[in-house]
Amino acid sequence: MASKESAVLGEMYKTWVATMAERPDMTMEETRRMFEHWGDVTAEPGDVDYIEVVANGVPCLWAKPKDGNESRALLCAHGGGYLVGSRYSHRKMFAHIAKAVGCPALIVDYRRSPEHLHPIPVNDCTDAYEWLLKQGIKPEHIAFTGDSAGGALAITTVLCARDRGLPLPVASMPISPWTDMEITGSTVTTNEAKDHFVKRAVIEHMSAGFLGEGGNRKDPLATPLYADLSSLPPFYVQVGGDETLLDDSRRFVEKVRQAGGEVKFDIYPEMQHVFHFLAGTAPEADKAIADQAAWVKPKLGL
Amino acid sequence: MASKESAVLGEMYKTWVATMAERPDMTMEETRRMFEHWGDVTAEPGDVDYIEVVANGVPCLWAKPKDGNESRALLCAHGGGYLVGSRYSHRKMFAHIAKAVGCPALIVDYRRSPEHLHPIPVNDCTDAYEWLLKQGIKPEHIAFTGDSAGGALAITTVLCARDRGLPLPVASMPISPWTDMEITGSTVTTNEAKDHFVKRAVIEHMSAGFLGEGGNRKDPLATPLYADLSSLPPFYVQVGGDETLLDDSRRFVEKVRQAGGEVKFDIYPEMQHVFHFLAGTAPEADKAIADQAAWVKPKLGL
Repeated sequence: MASKESAVLGEMYKTWVATMAERPDMTMEETRRMFEHWGDVTAEPGDVDYIEVVANGVPCLWAKPKDGNESRALLCAHGGGYLVGSRYSHRKMFAHIAKAVGCPALIVDYRRSPEHLHPIPVNDCTDAYEWLLKQGIKPEHIAFTGDSAGGALAITTVLCARDRGLPLPVASMPISPWTDMEITGSTVTTNEAKDHFVKRAVIEHMSAGFLGEGGNRKDPLATPLYADLSSLPPFYVQVGGDETLLDDSRRFVEKVRQAGGEVKFDIYPEMQHVFHFLAGTAPEADKAIADQAAWVKPKLGL
Repeated sequence: MASKESAVLGEMYKTWVATMAERPDMTMEETRRMFEHWGDVTAEPGDVDYIEVVANGVPCLWAKPKDGNESRALLCAHGGGYLVGSRYSHRKMFAHIAKAVGCPALIVDYRRSPEHLHPIPVNDCTDAYEWLLKQGIKPEHIAFTGDSAGGALAITTVLCARDRGLPLPVASMPISPWTDMEITGSTVTTNEAKDHFVKRAVIEHMSAGFLGEGGNRKDPLATPLYADLSSLPPFYVQVGGDETLLDDSRRFVEKVRQAGGEVKFDIYPEMQHVFHFLAGTAPEADKAIADQAAWVKPKLGL
């Protein structure tokens, strides 16, 4: 049974959905301001420093655990449907992951849609990855992670790096990834009542904002279900059992397996979208992050 | 008239007071967790780095504006009745002040009551001040600030530094300071209905927790209204017009003037306790912080 503490996230999502329904005229600036409160439910991890840096032209935030191994790094892409969220809203969540893994996390503040349509976000993330490599951090010492739209970026940035001929990171850990711009997952319908945030209308709105009018919903860098997923680093996908995007994870995992890739997949029962935001406040989030750390540390040589 | 945006703080305070009334059995840990959300109403200032440091044995957080002058510093004491609040809850508020002033802010995580009774908090703050001096920052390049209990610490740390024979900082800017452990201010009664947080019962609870059984409410390092306030650096006191602690500010200002000291005093009409938490989200907070910066920058040679 879900912990009592974990209910906080669903309650916040309900408030957001109600606010958006009441105020369809809300400006993008107001919407973004609302979503900046995402991290309010996350506990402060402590013993982590935060340093802003411009990485290859892309604003980023280093979350550096006090005793982290600085020869390793996590590249982190925040969620928010490519429209909202930032290095600040996700600061604490990624810092918890960085602390658990034991190395710094570079949180990428990629340019957001609709001002900056696809493929700008994935290009920005790949630029930040190139910057990490230029800092002398070896690709086998870098892992990607990200949540929701950022979960997709944790996949598509690997694909984009491959397209650019870059060495690939050692692993990637998408959290509740949104892998399907066509919105064809069956859980979009079957979990609609249980998922307090990612309703079909929300996904439709974000997909249109990200791709723009006439955008290609089958583009592999937007919908990695259409990508060539062979010869990629291992993935570890985590998702909540109550999510409309559960099938986005499930189908991605199947495609990787069909392509002969290595992928670990965990569904956390009764959890909402990106329940990792509850790090430090609900046991399910702490468990999921500990699971990530246990999986990725040996890969990073930590 | 108060801005629409400023209402958010009073609403949060109402929720807290209601929660405390409903749950008189709330543990100190739970109470502290609730108050860690203080900074949720503050906008992220951006262009500021956050570095944890142990200063003379005291955990602190540097908030370093990207283009700040690192030969200057603000020593910042957070509020929370000496019982709650932390370097994290007040991170963004003090970072806004640091950014406006143009130099780093050292936010002191002094040990809190009731585990650590008076005078431990003021001693910890003075230890952190000594550390700043040992870093080579000149006293004429250091100003103090703090809010609520931290507003008192912005005064009593000056007194404690004088007692230790240390050179004094160039200025101090108490925000909504709580200067009277005897709780004799007339506004404690006259503003009780308008102040959505600092009700008499709250002040009584915090005073008892801070001083412990049989503690001396007239101790000048707890109630600086009883201190020798002559020959001190200039003060700039800011307070909200709707505060029960308005008289704590007013009487402190009068005592400084009676002692021949320099003090600037501003009352911001219709504002709640430490409305500076609304930095970046309500114009009154941005105005008050701009006023602080305009006053203190020439004193710091900035």
